[in-house]
Amino acid sequence: MPNAEQQAINLAEKLTRFDALWSPKIVAQMNDYHFKIAKIKGEFVWHSHPETDECFLVLRGEMTIQLRDGFVHLAQGDLYIVPKGLEHRPCAEHECHILLIEPVGTPNTGDAGDERRVEAQWI
Amino acid sequence: MPNAEQQAINLAEKLTRFDALWSPKIVAQMNDYHFKIAKIKGEFVWHSHPETDECFLVLRGEMTIQLRDGFVHLAQGDLYIVPKGLEHRPCAEHECHILLIEPVGTPNTGDAGDERRVEAQWI
Repeated sequence: MPNAEQQAINLAEKLTRFDALWSPKIVAQMNDYHFKIAKIKGEFVWHSHPETDECFLVLRGEMTIQLRDGFVHLAQGDLYIVPKGLEHRPCAEHECHILLIEPVGTPNTGDAGDERRVEAQWI
Repeated sequence: MPNAEQQAINLAEKLTRFDALWSPKIVAQMNDYHFKIAKIKGEFVWHSHPETDECFLVLRGEMTIQLRDGFVHLAQGDLYIVPKGLEHRPCAEHECHILLIEPVGTPNTGDAGDERRVEAQWI
């Protein structure tokens, strides 16, 4: 169908569709990577992803990624790649909205596997 | 060094470092993928990437991705994944700033290989 408009993915609109904290939702797939949006507040668990780097991009608000030997502060529009295998703990004082990019099937709690593990669903 | 602050990548600041249009700059690497920022205005060339999907995320302004059988309009904060092998032509009426994510070594002109091909540099 010529000139048919296809829809882009509006991240802000997708973020209106859920409230749950620390529960990433899949919005897109590129090759074998998932793009996930999440709302975070408070402290997550220390974990690492032994098989992959992980991308954090702050869409709204600000957050800190604690590292065993330091930390990274991310404001809106900031990007950080957590290296494969590096222990980290995401934190946010106030509610913060983020975009995560990582291989399909990467668990949110990495190697920690505690009760905060959730299976990401498409939204 | 305990409590050492590491720097996030500030995309807006990176965008102040160059003016060239249609000349993506690498700002981060996640596994074997590059994150590139670009300033675009006008029409690019029709091309496809036979080996990979390609992610477009609009950081500022708006753009259109023309497809052979339609188009996608992206406003600020919108995301679109161009499927592997699909012919597309990025366009922007006014200057637009974008984030591209694609495998290391993906050429900007894909299979078109014309005089608008540039080798992306780190910035």
